[in-house]
Amino acid sequence: MKAVVLDAKWDPRPEFNLGKKDIDRKLTYLGSMVWRNPKLKIMEKAIPKIGPTEVLIKVRACGICGSDVHMAQADEEGYIFYPGLTAFPVTLGHEFSGEVVEAGPRAINKRTMRRFGKGEPVTSEEMLWCGSCRPCADGYPNHCEALQEIGFSTNGAFAEYVKVDARYVWSLEELKNIYSEKEIFLMGSLVEPTSVAYNAVIERGGGIRPGDSVVILGGGPIGLAAIAILKRAGASKIILSEPSKSRAEMGKRIGADYVIDPAREDFAGQVLDLTGGMGAKFYLEATGLPDRVFPDIEKAIWEGRTLNSVVVIVARAARKVSVNGEVFQVRRASIVGSQGHSGHGTFPRVISSMASGLNMLPLITKKVRLEKIPENIILLQTNRIECKISCVFD
Amino acid sequence: MKAVVLDAKWDPRPEFNLGKKDIDRKLTYLGSMVWRNPKLKIMEKAIPKIGPTEVLIKVRACGICGSDVHMAQADEEGYIFYPGLTAFPVTLGHEFSGEVVEAGPRAINKRTMRRFGKGEPVTSEEMLWCGSCRPCADGYPNHCEALQEIGFSTNGAFAEYVKVDARYVWSLEELKNIYSEKEIFLMGSLVEPTSVAYNAVIERGGGIRPGDSVVILGGGPIGLAAIAILKRAGASKIILSEPSKSRAEMGKRIGADYVIDPAREDFAGQVLDLTGGMGAKFYLEATGLPDRVFPDIEKAIWEGRTLNSVVVIVARAARKVSVNGEVFQVRRASIVGSQGHSGHGTFPRVISSMASGLNMLPLITKKVRLEKIPENIILLQTNRIECKISCVFD
Amino acid sequence: MKAVVLDAKWDPRPEFNLGKKDIDRKLTYLGSMVWRNPKLKIMEKAIPKIGPTEVLIKVRACGICGSDVHMAQADEEGYIFYPGLTAFPVTLGHEFSGEVVEAGPRAINKRTMRRFGKGEPVTSEEMLWCGSCRPCADGYPNHCEALQEIGFSTNGAFAEYVKVDARYVWSLEELKNIYSEKEIFLMGSLVEPTSVAYNAVIERGGGIRPGDSVVILGGGPIGLAAIAILKRAGASKIILSEPSKSRAEMGKRIGADYVIDPAREDFAGQVLDLTGGMGAKFYLEATGLPDRVFPDIEKAIWEGRTLNSVVVIVARAARKVSVNGEVFQVRRASIVGSQGHSGHGTFPRVISSMASGLNMLPLITKKVRLEKIPENIILLQTNRIECKISCVFD
Amino acid sequence: MKAVVLDAKWDPRPEFNLGKKDIDRKLTYLGSMVWRNPKLKIMEKAIPKIGPTEVLIKVRACGICGSDVHMAQADEEGYIFYPGLTAFPVTLGHEFSGEVVEAGPRAINKRTMRRFGKGEPVTSEEMLWCGSCRPCADGYPNHCEALQEIGFSTNGAFAEYVKVDARYVWSLEELKNIYSEKEIFLMGSLVEPTSVAYNAVIERGGGIRPGDSVVILGGGPIGLAAIAILKRAGASKIILSEPSKSRAEMGKRIGADYVIDPAREDFAGQVLDLTGGMGAKFYLEATGLPDRVFPDIEKAIWEGRTLNSVVVIVARAARKVSVNGEVFQVRRASIVGSQGHSGHGTFPRVISSMASGLNMLPLITKKVRLEKIPENIILLQTNRIECKISCVFD
Repeated sequence: MKAVVLDAKWDPRPEFNLGKKDIDRKLTYLGSMVWRNPKLKIMEKAIPKIGPTEVLIKVRACGICGSDVHMAQADEEGYIFYPGLTAFPVTLGHEFSGEVVEAGPRAINKRTMRRFGKGEPVTSEEMLWCGSCRPCADGYPNHCEALQEIGFSTNGAFAEYVKVDARYVWSLEELKNIYSEKEIFLMGSLVEPTSVAYNAVIERGGGIRPGDSVVILGGGPIGLAAIAILKRAGASKIILSEPSKSRAEMGKRIGADYVIDPAREDFAGQVLDLTGGMGAKFYLEATGLPDRVFPDIEKAIWEGRTLNSVVVIVARAARKVSVNGEVFQVRRASIVGSQGHSGHGTFPRVISSMASGLNMLPLITKKVRLEKIPENIILLQTNRIECKISCVFD
Repeated sequence: MKAVVLDAKWDPRPEFNLGKKDIDRKLTYLGSMVWRNPKLKIMEKAIPKIGPTEVLIKVRACGICGSDVHMAQADEEGYIFYPGLTAFPVTLGHEFSGEVVEAGPRAINKRTMRRFGKGEPVTSEEMLWCGSCRPCADGYPNHCEALQEIGFSTNGAFAEYVKVDARYVWSLEELKNIYSEKEIFLMGSLVEPTSVAYNAVIERGGGIRPGDSVVILGGGPIGLAAIAILKRAGASKIILSEPSKSRAEMGKRIGADYVIDPAREDFAGQVLDLTGGMGAKFYLEATGLPDRVFPDIEKAIWEGRTLNSVVVIVARAARKVSVNGEVFQVRRASIVGSQGHSGHGTFPRVISSMASGLNMLPLITKKVRLEKIPENIILLQTNRIECKISCVFD
Repeated sequence: MKAVVLDAKWDPRPEFNLGKKDIDRKLTYLGSMVWRNPKLKIMEKAIPKIGPTEVLIKVRACGICGSDVHMAQADEEGYIFYPGLTAFPVTLGHEFSGEVVEAGPRAINKRTMRRFGKGEPVTSEEMLWCGSCRPCADGYPNHCEALQEIGFSTNGAFAEYVKVDARYVWSLEELKNIYSEKEIFLMGSLVEPTSVAYNAVIERGGGIRPGDSVVILGGGPIGLAAIAILKRAGASKIILSEPSKSRAEMGKRIGADYVIDPAREDFAGQVLDLTGGMGAKFYLEATGLPDRVFPDIEKAIWEGRTLNSVVVIVARAARKVSVNGEVFQVRRASIVGSQGHSGHGTFPRVISSMASGLNMLPLITKKVRLEKIPENIILLQTNRIECKISCVFD
Repeated sequence: MKAVVLDAKWDPRPEFNLGKKDIDRKLTYLGSMVWRNPKLKIMEKAIPKIGPTEVLIKVRACGICGSDVHMAQADEEGYIFYPGLTAFPVTLGHEFSGEVVEAGPRAINKRTMRRFGKGEPVTSEEMLWCGSCRPCADGYPNHCEALQEIGFSTNGAFAEYVKVDARYVWSLEELKNIYSEKEIFLMGSLVEPTSVAYNAVIERGGGIRPGDSVVILGGGPIGLAAIAILKRAGASKIILSEPSKSRAEMGKRIGADYVIDPAREDFAGQVLDLTGGMGAKFYLEATGLPDRVFPDIEKAIWEGRTLNSVVVIVARAARKVSVNGEVFQVRRASIVGSQGHSGHGTFPRVISSMASGLNMLPLITKKVRLEKIPENIILLQTNRIECKISCVFD
């Protein structure tokens, strides 16, 4: 079968010492410290053999994520941008859907409580949580101490087939109610990024009550998914802060009531104007520039009258933010960090939401064949117009 | 000004002893034990004089509530049906809206933090919580130990004017965004019953997560409002259990995805079928016949796979229900009682929800003038077709 | 090695149909419908062989649980009392501790994040949750859809050695701070029943705030453990309702401030007297006679002024209770079912609590050798004085 | 009667503009911008006259708070240190207890639901929340938009008598169970500061589960009260970070298990050592130097394995802190601001906790007569040894 494989050279930066979980020449928890000269290619590989609890999935759709772009992108010294868990060579692709073509004898379908049948439309979590470590035992699989990741440290879904343990697989059967077959698989490939947003706003942020106002900072896929979810959760006003016009447009299409261009408008002033001086109950930092947006958020909280505002930081960023504790005291506010998409009933609720009208398809702005994935991964290093580029199969 | 006044004779049942909060010949906490031979009439009364923290409201709309019907309805011995706090004679009417025509010097508008201005469109809570007792100090005004109630123990809004302390008054200004003036006031008169439902499902029931399924038992105004709210909160499937066809229709119009006729269908079987064997996350008992519906609810929870189901009892009923603790153990489920509509940010969130599209107007099936209110209150003793009959003014 | 084995005859009651998870002649989810003529004996068995993620534990202490008694106890027709998951013959014993003597290469110690070392003092969950089904994936292992149970459907710890997957094993290393070696293992054998109580009062009941009053109904091991936990959680008043004098004494020793004898005293009246008319924030049904105690609980809630009371049902009982919804509405109260001890960080928090002073040793009223376990299991069919009888090894 | 009165000159800093709630020459929300040359004196004043909902309290004990010190302390330009709501001249004193000597006809005792009787031992909230504004109506009195404060903007309790609306008054009757009369009133004067800590750790921080470890940064009265409360809430390990030896000693006496001297020890390293590499579930910033301690807190969270840590900021400080969002993502952690002591059932729970053994008396290191209060307020500008100095009466 054909697969999009990323390879790179194990060449740790001089100052880097292998950590206790790094495995020499094979796997590291800090990709950008180790891997050099990334190369993307289409390769011919054997169809994976499944174990007793695994399913073999014929891939039907797989989206390109920013992480894919950063794994294939090198800095001036040739080291990859992506800073996380990686084991190369690896088949990329982790936002995918497909149909089950083979299932191990103990590969149980959570929908039916029986072994997976052929033809079941499915998607999968990207995080291969171990189910045994302290965080997993306590109910926090997004913080698994023995995590593996599909498309990062195990082979992913920019390929004709991918195998996954049934534990991580979720049926898309419900989607048949309202979507065509093609749409089911495209939608299925969006479950993972939508779940990252759902985990941030519902699980970590505590959700909202119908009638609350919210502000989303950053109109990338996670910010956009958050808009759609919070619209559905009953937000009375959704304000998107986003300088790009095309993203602003997409934000409106997916549910934002207002868009602020933070490069040209007074963010806090606008938020207060739009909310009658109240400010918002919920702020999602999804820009990756927390240091730049935090003063604005604090100003809106401080000058607004809303109590109990929650600021959820979902975008990953190395930069620190400056926080004024008094704002959070006077307004009874809080700051929460969010990571991951697994556990807490998130995947099945995202799928049920989609099955009853949460339509994320507008996020997909381009569909391409597997052969075109490498060049489109490269394209996204510079292109800021496309939102989600998806690989489709017949 | 004209007002619809209810009077009755203080004639306690022989077995009844006045409680410590009952006031002889004037006020009782147990109406149906004391008041006899209720009489409804239109009277000419003086326009109320306001105190320093009160507003005078020119009433624009006021709905008839089931409580109004039960206060005016007598049993075979002549005692009123309504079992709660009452002080007669009283002007009825507590689901109302209007515009401020006069405001005391310290009657602060929570919207502006300044004294109420003339012409502000407003609605009001019905519960006059004291703000000083233990439950009020702790944040639970729905359980005030010194409660008074507009239209029950103080004069209400089936009148041209009503006065209310500014503490209980909420601006409808936001509704101007999307509704006509007439609609604003009709909608405003629905804020109170909608808030009873909101308090039940969001505050007491803990709300839902987008993607959860819910079952509403009973298609009266509270059940219908709950449907609209939970639809807005992201329910993937809303199942209404209601035998009346007209109510079932209204339920669908306002957001129900499916309707079960419990008199002719197998409730639990239907719930399981419609949810792929999962059952619902949320059950609202809004029928007033808890003993009849509870076995069905338990069966759906027991046979469904959903964990953490919450059963909220919002309808008031004297009958006991039989509960099987094992069901609630095995399914990690719980039962919650709900009462009231005040506090917890409920009124303002209901208004903001309405201002962004929560349209409750379909509940109003008939509009009448003040003069027709007494006969319509009587009509509702037997008529099961009308949902909400509203009194409108010019 | 020696082991206490229970065997019985597979002889389903005529009216019983095997369920889809029952396995003919081997395993059933409804023991009392199937197993007849239970027999307890000491047998010589091979020391278990471990798999790659398992540990072999040399047992040091193992308590007799009520379930052990009910598995070995037959009704008039010879069927066992115990109604749950069972696969006979099986080595009994699930409240145990011991030291690791062998560990598979991937048997990770959650304390160290490395492979278990020899000599680590440990205890284990009794519930072998699968980690893959819908409830497990969502974070609710106590409701695993593919549950196995040590000492019920897999071999337990009334034996010299027992093997367990490392996933379920928790280190007792912390206890070394304040306990002697003997005490460590006795305490370790109490972690499981203490966790059942902890799950009921903290995870399911939502815990209390320091200063709240609580009522525990039933002074068995779970009720007693709940007393100790809630004392530690800051309860201002702990009232135990328990007719047996010896249990009442034990309740006081472990933390109860007051004991009510419900057979001779007015329960609700006493609760109100002891709390200055407030009633309690928390009621734990741990008697197994819910129908008998519920009217009392309701009366205390209804007549007390405390809002937000939670009634947690932890004892398993087939009998239904009669619930008055109005009580739960007027007092803003709720009812919650509780089952299990796994997940939610319960085991490690119980161990840390023990390591800082939560002393459960008073529960152990008798220590015996393995050879004496069968007769002591039989003894407990009638003896109501002993609390916990523990099997100790050298 | 004698009273300790603070006066100062209204002389706004040149750059200061009166806000909309400031009242010229009388009241300001930003004391340090306005008041100059503070003077403390003992004055003869009339005994207050009470209104219909007020009580007159004969003061029995009143502690000196840091705010009292800062109101009487001037910077180089003569402006007072205290930055908050102030209206001078005012009688200082807000941490007090006493006995009711007179009660208005509608001054209801929350304990009895009847009018206050003479001789009732009581304490009072310091925050005079209005009960009518948006935050009060929603249940957040600590964030009242029309707040007044006893001893800041209305006359306080460094006087023989003080009057307070019954709404804010709480009975100490329960304390009679275990304390002598003198102790009751000393303890009563500690309810307010203890409630500030309780609000921070229990209401805002969400409390802990028994078995969690906690770190308290700063051994002032709030930090010390937090130690006592969290000990009572079941913390397995309480680590106090405090450089002063006398405060460290007091911390241990009141419940800390370990003390770190952050000036000489590696804070994060110590926290990790003491917790077996886990770090703490709860961090309380009570130093007033958040910029200095935050890097340490973050390091302990980052390097520790504990998930879901909560950092509560309770000390007021103008300095900003630098926050690394990734730490809060990877460890599922959050930051919360805390302010106030009112509402949420805090006062009554603190009193019930005291009545069952939460002994805060060790905080009082010195008792003086009213005449000595001015000099002791001055003393505390420089003295760092005394913890709480209390004014006692006969």
